Amino acid sequence: MTLQCTKSAGHWRMVVWDEEGFQGRRHEFTAECPSVLELGFETVRSLKVLSGAWVGFEHAGFQGQQYVLERGDYPGWDAWGGNTAYPAERLTSFRPVACANHRDSRLTIFEQENFLGRKGELNDDYPSLQAMGWDGTEVGSFHVQSGAWVCSQFPGYRGFQYILESDHHSGDYKHFREWGSHAHTFQVQSVRRIQQ
Amino acid sequence: MTLQCTKSAGHWRMVVWDEEGFQGRRHEFTAECPSVLELGFETVRSLKVLSGAWVGFEHAGFQGQQYVLERGDYPGWDAWGGNTAYPAERLTSFRPVACANHRDSRLTIFEQENFLGRKGELNDDYPSLQAMGWDGTEVGSFHVQSGAWVCSQFPGYRGFQYILESDHHSGDYKHFREWGSHAHTFQVQSVRRIQQ
Repeated sequence: MTLQCTKSAGHWRMVVWDEEGFQGRRHEFTAECPSVLELGFETVRSLKVLSGAWVGFEHAGFQGQQYVLERGDYPGWDAWGGNTAYPAERLTSFRPVACANHRDSRLTIFEQENFLGRKGELNDDYPSLQAMGWDGTEVGSFHVQSGAWVCSQFPGYRGFQYILESDHHSGDYKHFREWGSHAHTFQVQSVRRIQQ
Repeated sequence: MTLQCTKSAGHWRMVVWDEEGFQGRRHEFTAECPSVLELGFETVRSLKVLSGAWVGFEHAGFQGQQYVLERGDYPGWDAWGGNTAYPAERLTSFRPVACANHRDSRLTIFEQENFLGRKGELNDDYPSLQAMGWDGTEVGSFHVQSGAWVCSQFPGYRGFQYILESDHHSGDYKHFREWGSHAHTFQVQSVRRIQQ
């Protein structure tokens, strides 16, 4: 079994329900949705990713906490929000994520903001940045050369997630203020490629 | 930067505190601890893994929910329990995990219990088993040929974690009852190697 993550394979499909356990009203998507409120949903309460990778957001308009959604079943908010101890129980907007071929993904991490200080080149998944030699618990800035990545506050992909993409911001994330509206520190202890 | 995860490098060190934010009483470990209650701790409330990989348990005697602990800082229970929406706010026992060399880790997953049905051979990290061709959201049984692995209920390493090791149970986990005292379904949607 070989990992595949190619833009050409990018055929995105996701189904959402307004009740837990794939119950209630159902809606299928193949492209971004800036607000489920417009469908008459109060929020998404369960979902299945049928193909492609997606990112879900707490608020409408792709704002608030970010949740990577890869292929599989998510029967309740704990299935996607379960990576943080303070999950927002809301999922209001979402959009596809374009991955590179898994083996070709490249990310540079910098010790300081604005691409300054010591740097590290990543092309694999790192549940602990410290275990592979990164000093400390913070990353100051990121440059995504290729692919789509998710970094997390704590080791083992726990805590707040920040999605980093080569085709957003030109791949440049020079300060935590550019990582997302929910980011308020430089704390990053694990990083991996998003799987499509 | 190259991933390293070898038994010979196995020099385990972890520091625990009885208050959040690395405050209060402090104790350092280089081997297993069957109960922090014996140190006079009510529970562990923050910890740092300085080397090696560990597994933490909710209850004394290595029972209850399991938490993979890789190198890094865990300032509060949300840092290790943040992979499930229903974390026990207790960490009472822990022990070292012996990894194989990262590239040599091998795991076989089976569709049904007792190593029956369709199977898949894994030697990489899979945030979504479905994305790499596994059908459905369940795994019936596991055989660990080499290394230490963590599998999770939901995609992206979320939900309950089950630690699987080649040097426990002879690497055989033939039913969810053998995955841990907290396991009550076959639901497994992501699997990865533990990083040391």
